[in-house]
Amino acid sequence: MTKKEDFKEKDAEELSKELRQVSVSAFFERNRHLLGYDNLSKALLTVVKEGVDNFLDASEEARILPDGEVKIKAISDTRFLITIEDNGPGIPKEHLPRVFGSLLYGSKFHRLKMSRGIQGIGISAAVLYSQLTTGKAVKVWSKTAKDKKMHFYEMYIDVHKNQAEVKKEEAIDTNKPHGVKIELEIEAKYQKGKQGVDEYLRQTSITNPHLKLIYTNPDNEKIIFPRASNNLPKEPKEIKPHPHGTELGVLIRMLKETKSRNLQSFLTSEFCRIGSGTAKEMIIKSQLNPNDKPQNLMHDQAEKLYKSMQEAKVIAPPTDCLSPIGEDDFLKSVQTEIKAEFYTAITRSPTSYRGYPFQVEASLAYGGELNPEDSIKIMRFANRVPLLYQQSACATTEGIKETNWRAYGLQQSGGNLPIGPVILAIHIASVWVPFTSEAKEAIAHYPEIIKEIKLAVQECGRRLGIYIRKNVKAREQREKANLFEKYIPELANSLSEITKENKNKLIEALNKRLKKDLPLLLEEGRIDEKKEVEGVVVERNKNEKQSTL
Amino acid sequence: MTKKEDFKEKDAEELSKELRQVSVSAFFERNRHLLGYDNLSKALLTVVKEGVDNFLDASEEARILPDGEVKIKAISDTRFLITIEDNGPGIPKEHLPRVFGSLLYGSKFHRLKMSRGIQGIGISAAVLYSQLTTGKAVKVWSKTAKDKKMHFYEMYIDVHKNQAEVKKEEAIDTNKPHGVKIELEIEAKYQKGKQGVDEYLRQTSITNPHLKLIYTNPDNEKIIFPRASNNLPKEPKEIKPHPHGTELGVLIRMLKETKSRNLQSFLTSEFCRIGSGTAKEMIIKSQLNPNDKPQNLMHDQAEKLYKSMQEAKVIAPPTDCLSPIGEDDFLKSVQTEIKAEFYTAITRSPTSYRGYPFQVEASLAYGGELNPEDSIKIMRFANRVPLLYQQSACATTEGIKETNWRAYGLQQSGGNLPIGPVILAIHIASVWVPFTSEAKEAIAHYPEIIKEIKLAVQECGRRLGIYIRKNVKAREQREKANLFEKYIPELANSLSEITKENKNKLIEALNKRLKKDLPLLLEEGRIDEKKEVEGVVVERNKNEKQSTL
Repeated sequence: MTKKEDFKEKDAEELSKELRQVSVSAFFERNRHLLGYDNLSKALLTVVKEGVDNFLDASEEARILPDGEVKIKAISDTRFLITIEDNGPGIPKEHLPRVFGSLLYGSKFHRLKMSRGIQGIGISAAVLYSQLTTGKAVKVWSKTAKDKKMHFYEMYIDVHKNQAEVKKEEAIDTNKPHGVKIELEIEAKYQKGKQGVDEYLRQTSITNPHLKLIYTNPDNEKIIFPRASNNLPKEPKEIKPHPHGTELGVLIRMLKETKSRNLQSFLTSEFCRIGSGTAKEMIIKSQLNPNDKPQNLMHDQAEKLYKSMQEAKVIAPPTDCLSPIGEDDFLKSVQTEIKAEFYTAITRSPTSYRGYPFQVEASLAYGGELNPEDSIKIMRFANRVPLLYQQSACATTEGIKETNWRAYGLQQSGGNLPIGPVILAIHIASVWVPFTSEAKEAIAHYPEIIKEIKLAVQECGRRLGIYIRKNVKAREQREKANLFEKYIPELANSLSEITKENKNKLIEALNKRLKKDLPLLLEEGRIDEKKEVEGVVVERNKNEKQSTL
Repeated sequence: MTKKEDFKEKDAEELSKELRQVSVSAFFERNRHLLGYDNLSKALLTVVKEGVDNFLDASEEARILPDGEVKIKAISDTRFLITIEDNGPGIPKEHLPRVFGSLLYGSKFHRLKMSRGIQGIGISAAVLYSQLTTGKAVKVWSKTAKDKKMHFYEMYIDVHKNQAEVKKEEAIDTNKPHGVKIELEIEAKYQKGKQGVDEYLRQTSITNPHLKLIYTNPDNEKIIFPRASNNLPKEPKEIKPHPHGTELGVLIRMLKETKSRNLQSFLTSEFCRIGSGTAKEMIIKSQLNPNDKPQNLMHDQAEKLYKSMQEAKVIAPPTDCLSPIGEDDFLKSVQTEIKAEFYTAITRSPTSYRGYPFQVEASLAYGGELNPEDSIKIMRFANRVPLLYQQSACATTEGIKETNWRAYGLQQSGGNLPIGPVILAIHIASVWVPFTSEAKEAIAHYPEIIKEIKLAVQECGRRLGIYIRKNVKAREQREKANLFEKYIPELANSLSEITKENKNKLIEALNKRLKKDLPLLLEEGRIDEKKEVEGVVVERNKNEKQSTL
């Protein structure tokens, strides 16, 4: 503690000498844990993830079937050279320095369209992390068309300016048609297991059956993820903001910046789901005129307009901006990857939160090689990207915990995850997935989202419950019948002694009775046996018919 | 799924049309939940917190005893006008638009010095949130000296440019000596309870006994937090980076940007704890020359230098950059705020993680009005700022859970929080508190930090254990003695019948015996009674003597 006489007050001028603008690069360099670089193992995953996400987004947008290669070469235990090469559309030369050398440079931030990346941070943050930990420049090759040259850049990020500092640049002749290749050297650690790169790529191939990927891991093992489907995902459409998802401050800015000459056309052209009738109604309710110039609105008028926009009944946003995996593909992918005895999948109808459309899908696998003593395993995906960290902070986990799994035949205590041989995969597709951090590891607890997750999970659970009840019941009844059958001669013996009836007659009568009472369960028992041999029962989606594969 | 014929590939030129730079304001406007604006109740807390944090930082730096006022006026159930006025040093006119109208503008980012704010995001993000939800401009008044005019600004943030858009500006004559006043209108919700503004300010006054604050809440209740200490906290010193906390990429940049003419002076002047001997050793080990120009180092040379800097034995960073609350003040503050029967506090010695000095303090209150059936209550502070959200994600919680509380007389199952009438306050002071998000709600799980938290908590627990054992034991023995005393006549009666000894003689003998054997416990029993009347026992810090207050 300072004594009173030490109170030499300093003045504002003196104190303000230190004030300065911090660049967004400097901010994230210092706060790299916010972007997924809080430890060495995660760093490796994050860099690969950012590269693969960008590649998948670009190739889908360009309508090219993605065909890529990821190589991780160990330079030492804590240093790796990562190479990611794709057959995407490439990036034009003039944009390369900004895409890789500047944070917050991207194409997706201003659009409402489902995509993996959105902020324009990911890949440049990987470059930032590389130069921070190894001091090395990123190397980028890009070719945009067969008749054009390939462009090569070697660059750093000037952290003070948040822009590229190009070290080397050249044009190269090559036969490759188009695509991007990047090379980054980073401090990292390679781990296998459920939070490692191998698992991330495996899960990526589950939700991206159209992807073909060759992966060479640091142990020099080559793993090929073949293309499971030649169909590109449906191309999601870009949508306009929904009136109910727009905030007052944004509306005021839109009014100022619009090219529309009057309020009527402003409302109908810059929002989705506002037809001319609804627009007129909103305007008149706000005591404004459809011909008013948007730029001239005073604050109070804008606020009135905002209020009537919120109060008006407007149908939910269009959902063609979403591209779900689909029940069939989700089921197939899970079947390919997980050996179980029962599978089911469901794709919920799209809905929206705060004006942003979203859609939940769930896929469940039960039994087989899965461990019946553990908590169920969860696989989480957002816009087809696997989420490997922060499971407990995620809305998906919350939705699963809030579901009563005892009703479906699993053990569950309190609000914990249920116990049982189950893998549950959840996918949420949205134009704006609300992540809890820039590292995009967990989905925020929006009530609308948790509700949809619960509904999807409950439907899977209900189907699982039917399967478990049927099979467990059948199994139990069959065991009872077997036991009874075994004791029939003994029983007949005793009865014969008591009643002096012929023993063989009694055996016959008892067998007859058993057969009459339990035909169904014996039948079921037989299906059960068959299933146990073949090991796979697939319950198809809505129609719920079972078939053995 | 799209059919093959739909594969109309788009080229890179077409796709890159949408590429653009996003401003940091636009980024955080869209991701406002990252800054603590994910729901209406939290928004109110966050805005008040940013204002009060800045005020406390500024007044401490200017060595002024802080004297402030916070007013929250309800305009509707979801709209509030917040006014925060202080007697700090003020902000010079030319900086006002940038401090309030530009994100990442501040004085603390580049310095290694303990302070509440650090990024230059907080208060401008509050302005951003205000204009986003109510469309209103922020109003700021600032005066830096008695003989200067007060300056008034009314401004918005131009989100595209991340800079202020001044609406109104004027100079005002006033008698006020110096200080800042801000006024913000926001969408929010007012809640009482453990995550509300009232609680935040109460806790702020606990860790800032030098603060005087008048608070008017939305229910128009005026709450005065009086100044408990006339001593300003010790002024933390700014330190230079420690060689072990510096990353390769940062070293390379420092080498390029330094004004030092040779490596020797670069190392000794730009880092802490590198004397000229150590510097020479590092340089020679890297096969470099002390006279080499830092700017001329090649990448490999810089990397070698980095390596020998990491390998060299360097003492821990200086710790005068930290300003802990101190055991006495922490104890006093907790005593003032919490009615319990036993208190203790400990301030650990400073240590460091990744080259950043930090220090942990803990204060524990037991019994009294605290609920013995509940989990213990935790109060968390970072650089004197109360943390009210994300308790379960915080390193402090982890440290408490990892402590074995059964050894100290509390119930605890598994790795959960213990049960008992306990409040445990933890303060971590550091030049760089590693928060898990920009909203600064929880401390990241650095092993070095968790270890220090555990050591602090264990010491409090040990003292609590002694207190519980002594008192519970004394209480039990007293009860036994009372019971025995009560049965002495009966016992004497029976004994008299058996032995034919005089009954009164026996009573006397038994009483004598009781008094001889249990003088200590009867004495303790008396202290115990006394304590129960007065309700407070304070166990002082290291010397551990008990006194009744």
